Amino acid sequence: MSNIKASIITIGDELLIGQTIDTNSAWIAQRLNDLGIDIIRRVAVGDLKDAIREALDEELSKAEIILITGGLGPTADDITKPVLCEYFGAEMIVNEQVLQHLKDIFTKRNRPFLERNLKQAEVPDNCTVLFNKMGTAPGMWFEKNSKVIISMPGVPFEMMGIMEDEVIPRFRKRYISDSLIHRSIMTAGEGESYIANKIEDLENALPAHIRLAYLPGYGSVKLRLTGRSNDELRLIKELELRQEEIANRLGDIVIAMDDFPLEYTIGKYFVEKQVTLGLAESCTGGFIAHHLTQVMGSAGYFNGSIVCYQESVKENVLGVKHNTLDEYGAVSEETAIEMAKGALKVLGADYALSVTGLLSAGSESDRVPVGTVWMAIASKEDVKTKHFRFHYDRPRNKEMAVQMGMLMIWKYLHGKL
Amino acid sequence: MSNIKASIITIGDELLIGQTIDTNSAWIAQRLNDLGIDIIRRVAVGDLKDAIREALDEELSKAEIILITGGLGPTADDITKPVLCEYFGAEMIVNEQVLQHLKDIFTKRNRPFLERNLKQAEVPDNCTVLFNKMGTAPGMWFEKNSKVIISMPGVPFEMMGIMEDEVIPRFRKRYISDSLIHRSIMTAGEGESYIANKIEDLENALPAHIRLAYLPGYGSVKLRLTGRSNDELRLIKELELRQEEIANRLGDIVIAMDDFPLEYTIGKYFVEKQVTLGLAESCTGGFIAHHLTQVMGSAGYFNGSIVCYQESVKENVLGVKHNTLDEYGAVSEETAIEMAKGALKVLGADYALSVTGLLSAGSESDRVPVGTVWMAIASKEDVKTKHFRFHYDRPRNKEMAVQMGMLMIWKYLHGKL
Repeated sequence: MSNIKASIITIGDELLIGQTIDTNSAWIAQRLNDLGIDIIRRVAVGDLKDAIREALDEELSKAEIILITGGLGPTADDITKPVLCEYFGAEMIVNEQVLQHLKDIFTKRNRPFLERNLKQAEVPDNCTVLFNKMGTAPGMWFEKNSKVIISMPGVPFEMMGIMEDEVIPRFRKRYISDSLIHRSIMTAGEGESYIANKIEDLENALPAHIRLAYLPGYGSVKLRLTGRSNDELRLIKELELRQEEIANRLGDIVIAMDDFPLEYTIGKYFVEKQVTLGLAESCTGGFIAHHLTQVMGSAGYFNGSIVCYQESVKENVLGVKHNTLDEYGAVSEETAIEMAKGALKVLGADYALSVTGLLSAGSESDRVPVGTVWMAIASKEDVKTKHFRFHYDRPRNKEMAVQMGMLMIWKYLHGKL
Repeated sequence: MSNIKASIITIGDELLIGQTIDTNSAWIAQRLNDLGIDIIRRVAVGDLKDAIREALDEELSKAEIILITGGLGPTADDITKPVLCEYFGAEMIVNEQVLQHLKDIFTKRNRPFLERNLKQAEVPDNCTVLFNKMGTAPGMWFEKNSKVIISMPGVPFEMMGIMEDEVIPRFRKRYISDSLIHRSIMTAGEGESYIANKIEDLENALPAHIRLAYLPGYGSVKLRLTGRSNDELRLIKELELRQEEIANRLGDIVIAMDDFPLEYTIGKYFVEKQVTLGLAESCTGGFIAHHLTQVMGSAGYFNGSIVCYQESVKENVLGVKHNTLDEYGAVSEETAIEMAKGALKVLGADYALSVTGLLSAGSESDRVPVGTVWMAIASKEDVKTKHFRFHYDRPRNKEMAVQMGMLMIWKYLHGKL
């Protein structure tokens, strides 16, 4: 029972010189995966005619669907459209719907409609136009020897709009295939090897249509079970049985049975219990607050964060004692405790987490080693603290502190701290 | 004068099903680009023997250097090492240096050394081991018909460590090539087409060894000039002349003549003028503070941010009047002004930016349309405000607000608001 095979070709010099990180491919892969379409390869090439043609030849020999992103801008370095036009032996014609859409956009934005914008309304005469409601460059759908070749802009939200509105509905109609179902287990505190060893017999006993993958993150490992079958209901039952079996074996290191980032798992708890959260962030500089507020509805339980990058803010806003800062330093258990208690009070929250640390060499480096972070979590009942030492560079230490901070909230709420 | 050609092969099912975004490739590309090595293609394949072998065959036919990342973990789904061993006709042997390193790591972490970890010390007998000081899986350097094939772990900071310590120094010795120099112009406020039209004659007059690329971002477009020559000093002069010519033509929309994110451009100003900055963030939820504190040394000028996700925090911490919130709403010019003034005072800063908005449908949606954002910037002298309306989804609206907020700071400081 083999799946439909697809390849992604991303076009653009900016991808090859590392100016842009390709987030499109992961998004496309996830969406197609849900339809039972497998991405078997992803290829990135530059804005060069021969490289694009060669990539098309190669991927057409391996896959039934080719998804192309990028190279559709109005500037001279973007050549995807003329190359595709030639590749599929077509003529360029103006598409009236696209032209009208372009004129509307320019009127709305109060910008002059330029000659080079007119070019954006042209499409090869043998393609189906995929309407781009989010931008100016239309998507294109070609067919050749019953294979499908789709070209879309590289701008993420334009590509996403075309995929959702135009491509995925067509794929649903055209390809019938097995269901592909995922179940995940989120763990924290142990590494891949430890987990693999602990569940070796369970992993070996998995049937051929269920695969297990280990996805390590910051201080966490996600286990993902993927099953494939034409009997969806039975597959779900089977997967959930395996998921439970593995989670039971792993015990305390399991923090969630789903695929959501920690901020969603935490958010769910606060919504259910109708309690609120506040933060006092020094070294994480507002990044925990950012993560928490990515969750739609977080305004219902997240009160705010005091980002206190200076000692004066710790004192004046959070009420940390001058003595405490002098005697123990800004990066200390004592300061963390007073920050958490201060945030609890000033933000009027039921729980408050504080984070203070030294992520890279700086003024505090004579008092604590680089990478030292203290956290405290306070409620009306008590305060608990935790000491960390991270060994990476500044951005990674910050990301680690964010994840460990959210994990600390989770553990405190579940009586595991 | 053609450059050395390199291909990147990334291995791992997680990349093809979209669980992981490939940030490694962009990083590798940037580092190699500085050496004058061109990435001509990037290919991602799954953890499948035939797919890996086929990718190796193909890329070896096109490039002189193949960089492979991923598939070196200790779990059963990772097969890169045995596949490479077979591909290069080698035998597996234990490397003593790696073995000792592994044992040290496990002792330090107080974890048992397992049978499957021993496997990580094994390497094909015809490769040069690239020491991985950041992790357990060693890198490997193979040569075949004077081409170089390098295998590294997919964990970003492990790969980066091996590249910096082992790969790049070897590349420097082995390959001599032209210098590749970039010069950038950061613009804000106009789109690609507008800019392309405005500088069309200058772009057409560029010599063959200088290329211009347009890199659109959130509310900004970066122009990047790339030159290639064996006369580095002359090339730099030439590039800077073209850069100035284009910047002069574009006038007011130019915000920086370098390649740094806005937070660095802003940071430089604050360091030079020895003044300080504070924030009051509602809808951006600490994300502006996060951006500003990504800059090493930001503690020298960034005082902090009051992330006020509740009206009570706006009132109690920032001193926004209850009446103002009642009469005009949390998302209003009046509230933004009081937030900025409050932040100026409570954070003891010379300048303060406030942001309040409605990024997605919520409680304020009856008072203002979704996507409405008000910002205010205050100093001891005055307050200026700006109204925005973003039309995207929640995460993108947040990112837009962050970039527009930083741009507002920049413009205010330069008297352009």
